[in-house]
Amino acid sequence: MSRTFSYPQKVLFRHCDPAGIVFYPRYFEMMNDCVEAFFGYALAAPWEVLHIDAAIPTVAIETTFSSPSHHGDHLDIALTVTRVGNTSLGLHLHAQCTGQSRFEATITLVYVNGKGRPQAWPETLRGTLIPFLGDDT
Amino acid sequence: MSRTFSYPQKVLFRHCDPAGIVFYPRYFEMMNDCVEAFFGYALAAPWEVLHIDAAIPTVAIETTFSSPSHHGDHLDIALTVTRVGNTSLGLHLHAQCTGQSRFEATITLVYVNGKGRPQAWPETLRGTLIPFLGDDT
Amino acid sequence: MSRTFSYPQKVLFRHCDPAGIVFYPRYFEMMNDCVEAFFGYALAAPWEVLHIDAAIPTVAIETTFSSPSHHGDHLDIALTVTRVGNTSLGLHLHAQCTGQSRFEATITLVYVNGKGRPQAWPETLRGTLIPFLGDDT
Amino acid sequence: MSRTFSYPQKVLFRHCDPAGIVFYPRYFEMMNDCVEAFFGYALAAPWEVLHIDAAIPTVAIETTFSSPSHHGDHLDIALTVTRVGNTSLGLHLHAQCTGQSRFEATITLVYVNGKGRPQAWPETLRGTLIPFLGDDT
Repeated sequence: MSRTFSYPQKVLFRHCDPAGIVFYPRYFEMMNDCVEAFFGYALAAPWEVLHIDAAIPTVAIETTFSSPSHHGDHLDIALTVTRVGNTSLGLHLHAQCTGQSRFEATITLVYVNGKGRPQAWPETLRGTLIPFLGDDT
Repeated sequence: MSRTFSYPQKVLFRHCDPAGIVFYPRYFEMMNDCVEAFFGYALAAPWEVLHIDAAIPTVAIETTFSSPSHHGDHLDIALTVTRVGNTSLGLHLHAQCTGQSRFEATITLVYVNGKGRPQAWPETLRGTLIPFLGDDT
Repeated sequence: MSRTFSYPQKVLFRHCDPAGIVFYPRYFEMMNDCVEAFFGYALAAPWEVLHIDAAIPTVAIETTFSSPSHHGDHLDIALTVTRVGNTSLGLHLHAQCTGQSRFEATITLVYVNGKGRPQAWPETLRGTLIPFLGDDT
Repeated sequence: MSRTFSYPQKVLFRHCDPAGIVFYPRYFEMMNDCVEAFFGYALAAPWEVLHIDAAIPTVAIETTFSSPSHHGDHLDIALTVTRVGNTSLGLHLHAQCTGQSRFEATITLVYVNGKGRPQAWPETLRGTLIPFLGDDT
C-alpha cells in the first residue's frame, strides 16, 4: 500500500469568490503549497534549497471538483506518489472535508536544471520518493 | 468549422515565479479571465450580471503545459466551445506565443442557481453559445 | 502594555517573484491571513461566521518594507491593537525574521453591515478587543 | 503641471471577495500592473528587460480605500510621478470609477542592482521620468 502525505488546509477569506466558494485558481495554489510541504517535510528537500540550481515545473494536471468548498471549511489534502520516472514525478491529490470529496488532481512534475532542461532526479531525492510508491503502484 | 474567441494576454511580472516563468496557478487566473471575457464580449452575458442570481463553477479541468512562458511573452489564448449540455459547457483553450504552444486546457463548467443547484442554460445564453459549436463538433 | 498576537508565516514559493523575493501584493495576503487568524483564534470571532451578515473592509493601510524576504524565510508577524473606535479598528503589524524587521503596517478596518454601512462593533466583539489595547495606548 | 499616465482596469471576477467587492490585496496587484505598464509604455523601459540585471522593489506604500469597487466596475487609475530621487521614485496613484474616488496610493520604489543594492537610476530612464514631474512638483 502506498504511503500518504496529509496536508491540512483551512479555507480562508482570500480563497473565496463572490459566490462564497473557493475560486478554483486558489485550489491550485493550495495544491502547490501541499506539494511544497511534501518536498520540505516528507522528502527533506525544501524548495528554497532545491530551487537554487533546479526547478520542478508542472507539465500536466487533471482536476475534478466534485463539491464546492466554503469559507471556514477544513480540508484535508491527501497526497500520494503514483510514479517516479527518470525525470518526472506523478502525484495524486485528494481533498476531503469531513469525509466529503472536494477535489482530486493528477499531477505530473518534471525535474529540470537551471536552464529548464529535464534531468534525472538526484539519487538522494529518488531514494526518499520510492518508499512513497508502495507495493501496489 | 467552429468559431474561435481570441484573447490576448501579456505575461506580467505578477504571473512569474522565482524560476522566471509563469507560476502555473496564474495560468488558471488567465484562463478564468479569458472565459469571463468570452461571456462578456462574445456572448453579451457579462459575469457581473450573470452572477447576481447564478454562478458557473468549474467542475473539471485538464491541462498540459507544453513549454514555459516568460515575463514579457505575448500569449494568444484561443477559446473554442466543444459541447453545450443541458446545464454544462465544454470549452477548449489553447495558448500560443509566436506559434509555439504553451498550454492547452479542456474545461467543463456548469450553470447553477443561487443555491448551487445545476439548472438549464437560459435560452438566450444557449442561443449565443450554439453558433460557437460549428459543424464539426 | 498591549497584548500581542503572534502569527508565523513561512515564505513559500507562491509568494516570490522573478527577483526571488516576496512580491509585495503577497505580503498583503499574509497580512489579511494574520488578521483573519487574529479574529478567529484570539477573538473567537471566525470570519466565516462574521461575514454572514457583516464585513470588515480595510479603509486605510500604510506599509514600509524595510528588508526583502526570501523563499524559505520564517516570518513572525506580531499584531497589536492600537485603537478600538465605534465602528473602526486600528491594528499594527510588524513582521520580523530572526530579529530583522521585514515590514510594518498600520491598518484601519471598519465594521459594516450587509449593505456596506458602518455600524458599531457588536458588544461581545468589543469586549474581546479591549483587552488587547493595554494601558499605554 | 505634471503629466498623468492613465491605466484602465475593469474589476474582474478574480478580484472580488465573498462580500462581492474587490479584495484589497488584489488592488495592489492592479497597482503593480499599472506601474509595470507605465514603465513599459510611457517610459519605454519594459520590466521584462529591466529585470534582467536590476529590480524595483516597493519600499513604502500608503493607501486609502475611499469606496468599495464591485465586479464589473471600470476603474481608471491615474499615475503621476511625485519625486525622482537618486535611487528612488515617488509615485501617486488615484483610481476612480465614473468620477467617484476608489483608492489613492503613495508609493516609493527604489532601483536596485542584481544583488539588491540601491543604485542611481540609469540616465536614459531618468531622462524619461523627469518630464512626468512637471513644473509644480
